[in-house]
Amino acid sequence: MKKIDGGVTAAQGFQSAGITCGLKESGQKDLALIHSRKPALAAAVFTTNQAQAAPVILSRERLQKGRCQAIIINSGNANACTGEQGLAAAGEMTQLTADDLGLKPELVAAASTGIIGQTLPMDKIRAGIHKAVTALTDDDRDAARAILTTDDHVKTSAYQFTTNTGREVTVGGMAKGSGMIHPGMATMLAFITTDISIERKLLKEALREANAVSFNCISVDGDQSTNDSLFVLANGEAGNQKIASQGGDYGKFLEALKKVSIDLAQAIVDDGEGATKFITIKVKGAPGDKEAEKIARQVANSNLVKTACFGSDPNWGRILAAAGAAGVEFALDEITVSINNKELFKKGLPQAADRKELAGLMDEHEILIEITLQSGAGTCEFWTTDLSYKYVEINAEYHT
Amino acid sequence: MKKIDGGVTAAQGFQSAGITCGLKESGQKDLALIHSRKPALAAAVFTTNQAQAAPVILSRERLQKGRCQAIIINSGNANACTGEQGLAAAGEMTQLTADDLGLKPELVAAASTGIIGQTLPMDKIRAGIHKAVTALTDDDRDAARAILTTDDHVKTSAYQFTTNTGREVTVGGMAKGSGMIHPGMATMLAFITTDISIERKLLKEALREANAVSFNCISVDGDQSTNDSLFVLANGEAGNQKIASQGGDYGKFLEALKKVSIDLAQAIVDDGEGATKFITIKVKGAPGDKEAEKIARQVANSNLVKTACFGSDPNWGRILAAAGAAGVEFALDEITVSINNKELFKKGLPQAADRKELAGLMDEHEILIEITLQSGAGTCEFWTTDLSYKYVEINAEYHT
Repeated sequence: MKKIDGGVTAAQGFQSAGITCGLKESGQKDLALIHSRKPALAAAVFTTNQAQAAPVILSRERLQKGRCQAIIINSGNANACTGEQGLAAAGEMTQLTADDLGLKPELVAAASTGIIGQTLPMDKIRAGIHKAVTALTDDDRDAARAILTTDDHVKTSAYQFTTNTGREVTVGGMAKGSGMIHPGMATMLAFITTDISIERKLLKEALREANAVSFNCISVDGDQSTNDSLFVLANGEAGNQKIASQGGDYGKFLEALKKVSIDLAQAIVDDGEGATKFITIKVKGAPGDKEAEKIARQVANSNLVKTACFGSDPNWGRILAAAGAAGVEFALDEITVSINNKELFKKGLPQAADRKELAGLMDEHEILIEITLQSGAGTCEFWTTDLSYKYVEINAEYHT
Repeated sequence: MKKIDGGVTAAQGFQSAGITCGLKESGQKDLALIHSRKPALAAAVFTTNQAQAAPVILSRERLQKGRCQAIIINSGNANACTGEQGLAAAGEMTQLTADDLGLKPELVAAASTGIIGQTLPMDKIRAGIHKAVTALTDDDRDAARAILTTDDHVKTSAYQFTTNTGREVTVGGMAKGSGMIHPGMATMLAFITTDISIERKLLKEALREANAVSFNCISVDGDQSTNDSLFVLANGEAGNQKIASQGGDYGKFLEALKKVSIDLAQAIVDDGEGATKFITIKVKGAPGDKEAEKIARQVANSNLVKTACFGSDPNWGRILAAAGAAGVEFALDEITVSINNKELFKKGLPQAADRKELAGLMDEHEILIEITLQSGAGTCEFWTTDLSYKYVEINAEYHT
């Protein structure tokens, strides 16, 4: 297993494009296309929000048959809460893409991110799709940039491994995040491609497992969007013997998929709106993994914990109060709270007698919060950001 | 029913005191005492946080017998997460108060608010209690000030009504809030006194009902503290015929108790940390009241909605996205979202064609967000604040 450069075009048989079609006033790239030479098996996870954007409704339906050959993605406009007209626009996006690529429309999915409630300007989209199809390339950088909104950095990741029969398999992906990052799943778009040959039910299972420990374990502000989508396409071009059972090569593939997903998820957090800290929350000893996740999520979403992190203040009291509000029972003398490997609360009592001891404890960009219970073997690793002036600025001044 | 001046000493037979005992470095008042001439019936609601402060543990036990004659309250130190020593300190606070007032310790409750994890300096508390007992007065203003932490304003409210047999009954209270305001119940201290004569189970029921539509319907930052406590004492000095059933005078009492509770709850929100807006969220047409509350709470706790309010941006998309993430099913064409009586989303479509129409819509201090479903008769009225630079400043710079 090795990490390599690249994103959605790292695996064999995939190309992508990223161009400007004029949705963003800034003139930045705003239309991306992913294309597989051959029809690929596909699986996806979508937002559970009741308010689902048109491309989510369309892509969910398209992917039910488990096959996909292209995904057309625009940023700058979420095509959410746009009624019948929005659904028609999403349908037209995929139809135009299919026409230009010579595919059946059923093999094209769509994703959108940006402002809610505005109709897509179809003239711009139409011209943009022609341009994107022409711009398809083995380089993934333009596509990775074109899916961003308020993100500062492109987010890509890719890994390679060799199957037991000597075939080289690649898994690569790209994502956008920034605001509204909250799981169940996270508010984000992510696209992962691989050239592995695998049975569809295993591809779905692998995506579910990878999502559970990556995109489902991040949070920026606890909000959930109308457009969250995570896709994986597997086109079989690696030529490996089709994976038909767990174990062996499936394990390697799952590991690669998890690595790509965790890299992208962490990159989303690190590029969260106004983030000045990257916070890892590890919960151990909970009754089960689900309870561990509840505690981690409650701590991650606590504005008081987030502002304390922004202020580099080792305020374990806020962490404890957030953990105690997660709906998981524990006794105060059974919980240990550490920050950056320094135990601050244990056996029912504060551990740091002297504030001077703690000076500088949280000055670094990365903060590790560990919460240990004595109730079982449940664990969770969760990633989040602090809450800064900049977050408020971005979200108070980003007008509809 | 009329609103009158005053707080915890408005009802007959109650006195209070608020003095400086030296817990706050600022030298501001930090010890309050409430005293009833006669033992009073008592009911209370406490935080459901797993991390419960020592005074919460102690007072919960004391109030099981349903009687209370005095409450000793300190600010500046939460006496939370302080182990056995903290429990002993809370016990000693009530013992000293009982000794000075000539009461049985079982009739004294305690409450604390402030920094978590620091041992109470008992020498200061001891001297302070003597001073507070001497300072007992019919005026409630010093007590109302002494319970504050980062609050800017004292919060008191009182109402009077006449029973069917011509007796005048008074209900009055005081509260502190500011940060960590989140219900289930809210993170706050509130003390309500009344001279009504009422059976204990009805007092408990009335408190439960009043709490459900007041302190349980406010949120500043979604965090829940270790010290939340709401007390009501009823000393019977109004001389009314003891209320033994619902209906009649019980209804009037419940109305007065609700009015005092809602006044105090709204005052807590309006004085929330860094608050520049007072936001009312009304949900109607939900499957039930519980579902309406879920939606209201999700919208109230959305940092994206809060920052949009801070920026006076009528961003109905964020409201819709938050409502859609509350775990209550609805179809997009069955939800209406209004801000300050202007319909912004209805029948699946945005309603405001022109942004100019919306200019100035949210410039006032008070913002009304209305969300209407078509699923039933469930309603909820909820109050919250915006999320401002000042909130971040207060909570990033308030060090442990």
